[in-house]
Amino acid sequence: MKKISLLGATGSIGIQTLDVIASHPNEFNLVSMSFGSNVKSGIDIIKKFKPKFVAVKDKDTYSLLIDTFGSGDITFHYGQDGLIEAAVFDDVDILVNAVVGSVGLVPTLKAIEHGITIALANKETLVTAGHIVMELANQYNVPILPVDSEHSAIYQCLQGEDTKAIDKLIITASGGSFRDKTRDELKGVTVEQALNHPNWSMGAKITIDSATMMNKGLEVIEAHWLFQMPYEKIEVLLHKESIIHSMVQFEDYSVIAQLGTPDMRVPIQYALSYPNRLPIHNGNRLNLSEIGLLHFEQMDFDRFRSLYLAFESGKSGGTMPTVLNASNEVAVAAFLKGQISFLKIDEIIEKALDSHANITHPTLEQIQEVDKLTRTYVQSLIS
Amino acid sequence: MKKISLLGATGSIGIQTLDVIASHPNEFNLVSMSFGSNVKSGIDIIKKFKPKFVAVKDKDTYSLLIDTFGSGDITFHYGQDGLIEAAVFDDVDILVNAVVGSVGLVPTLKAIEHGITIALANKETLVTAGHIVMELANQYNVPILPVDSEHSAIYQCLQGEDTKAIDKLIITASGGSFRDKTRDELKGVTVEQALNHPNWSMGAKITIDSATMMNKGLEVIEAHWLFQMPYEKIEVLLHKESIIHSMVQFEDYSVIAQLGTPDMRVPIQYALSYPNRLPIHNGNRLNLSEIGLLHFEQMDFDRFRSLYLAFESGKSGGTMPTVLNASNEVAVAAFLKGQISFLKIDEIIEKALDSHANITHPTLEQIQEVDKLTRTYVQSLIS
Repeated sequence: MKKISLLGATGSIGIQTLDVIASHPNEFNLVSMSFGSNVKSGIDIIKKFKPKFVAVKDKDTYSLLIDTFGSGDITFHYGQDGLIEAAVFDDVDILVNAVVGSVGLVPTLKAIEHGITIALANKETLVTAGHIVMELANQYNVPILPVDSEHSAIYQCLQGEDTKAIDKLIITASGGSFRDKTRDELKGVTVEQALNHPNWSMGAKITIDSATMMNKGLEVIEAHWLFQMPYEKIEVLLHKESIIHSMVQFEDYSVIAQLGTPDMRVPIQYALSYPNRLPIHNGNRLNLSEIGLLHFEQMDFDRFRSLYLAFESGKSGGTMPTVLNASNEVAVAAFLKGQISFLKIDEIIEKALDSHANITHPTLEQIQEVDKLTRTYVQSLIS
Repeated sequence: MKKISLLGATGSIGIQTLDVIASHPNEFNLVSMSFGSNVKSGIDIIKKFKPKFVAVKDKDTYSLLIDTFGSGDITFHYGQDGLIEAAVFDDVDILVNAVVGSVGLVPTLKAIEHGITIALANKETLVTAGHIVMELANQYNVPILPVDSEHSAIYQCLQGEDTKAIDKLIITASGGSFRDKTRDELKGVTVEQALNHPNWSMGAKITIDSATMMNKGLEVIEAHWLFQMPYEKIEVLLHKESIIHSMVQFEDYSVIAQLGTPDMRVPIQYALSYPNRLPIHNGNRLNLSEIGLLHFEQMDFDRFRSLYLAFESGKSGGTMPTVLNASNEVAVAAFLKGQISFLKIDEIIEKALDSHANITHPTLEQIQEVDKLTRTYVQSLIS
């Protein structure tokens, strides 16, 4: 029985993680969790899973929970302290970090110091502080198990393999909602059109990131850290069906790939059950003869400017990926509010990167400072 | 440095094995070999690789070699005894068994008893005597490493995995030279047309086996034994590009696949370098964006009758696969000589299977007897 702490329980990844936990009651036990503003859903989860510890965002929600559940079996806490306590609660075996944004970083680091295995769905952790996280994980000999489908695919392809024999990682990209449009045709696109992703049903921010290909760019930076791979050995391949989730080419030119129907519960469950596998509850078998065709196309870096910018800031390292990520977040939020056009997103990110003086080996504090400054700067460009 | 014995050095697999050995002189050393009737090529190989032991088919060739090389550094021998001696010579680490036909069986068994790792390219070994070979390999804890691309693919996909978590094996099939023809259109096909395989350049027998799909049928039986998998968990999928060499679906419905350009040296080298990988000499990287499309189609057992017959005889077990294999060999030889039509191949095999009284747990001698009787019977059907 593995004891699980889940940060971000009411989000998309959180809910699917709970589905996996519920489908294997003899394997997994939710002992600790956190959630943000979705209080109703949070209360339902507490009632169903009966964790021992619950962290929430603010004191008001905390008070509401105390009123609802009393001060009995469950310990409640709030704020950043609560999040950290939830991450390292009692004798947790695995921390599933599914919070959105840079708030996910410190709980991950604390859990690593407690020797807790990390199932990582929080992109910012590796994008902004990959060097700090991986060094600490290495020092404490803690596995960082990826939860998104591309990195889980690569992780699965590398089982039983020597990473020194890797020729390159091939990350597949669906191309997002605008894959068949030229840059010129992107000029007039609406928020509604951008939110219509062909293969995956996800949150608004990540759907826009798929359309700009920034999502893939952030994944490239994560892959660089997770698999300690130079950027020259990471390739992005357009594959519109998203059936091959990613691949590894080895030095004998043998390629190992992981495939499947789009179901985020598979990489989530793999991270929880690793190194074993378990049956997937109500899953869909892949049927390639029904699908019939798989398409592959070379990536166009002019068309997908965000991906180019991500590779470049990854190669520069230091605080550049922090600027990339923060400027993208603010720009996407502005696009979703109708304040800027779709193509403006790339432009703003590029401007933010150009105007930043890189700090090559930043501390956690420097990263947080750069993140804040970038948001202020980008906000000033928009309004 | 691994010491290698290669049986069948002048055949297609043999030559490619020598290419792999020559390209990694610090990893592999050919200490022992055998060849059959291709004397000129055999002599060239001896001169280049300087093995310590050479076995040939008959006494005449033996005498010729003694005349050519003297009785100095190299020991020569001939016949079945010679083949066995070559297999277990000195302190061989790996036996590459690339002989064609049932003559490959006994040397494999002897090598297993000597604790020598088997790199298996000889189909008959597992098809006719899988129960004997795998039991012996298990007893002596000897790995049987597959050399053909499909089984090597599955072997690679299973690295680091628990075989208990397998949902099914998915073996891909190009469909051979006649994949787009209906059964009706197969009536008039010529030997020349049948020999024109779209993806792989191979020997005549195996190219015809690809066209009838018997090749895939024999591979299914081999997979059953190699991976100890019930036939219900083995699926054949039409995939005309032969880029995905085979796949494994696990109980979480995650599918791991092995892909590559058509190059038999990759599975050969993998068997030799296992559990490591090595760079492939003059290899071709897979470029999926150049290929653009991968096609998949459901297998049609009416269209490919041989595959149906292979599954059925595999499920029956005992001596049925021996009858399948022997009747196919004689029928294909007759087709290549222009004695029977293409569609007659399946018919003859089915007749042979129908008229055979299965022996459920045959000994080696019984297998050899059934093999002989089947050949005589099928020959009588033809002439």
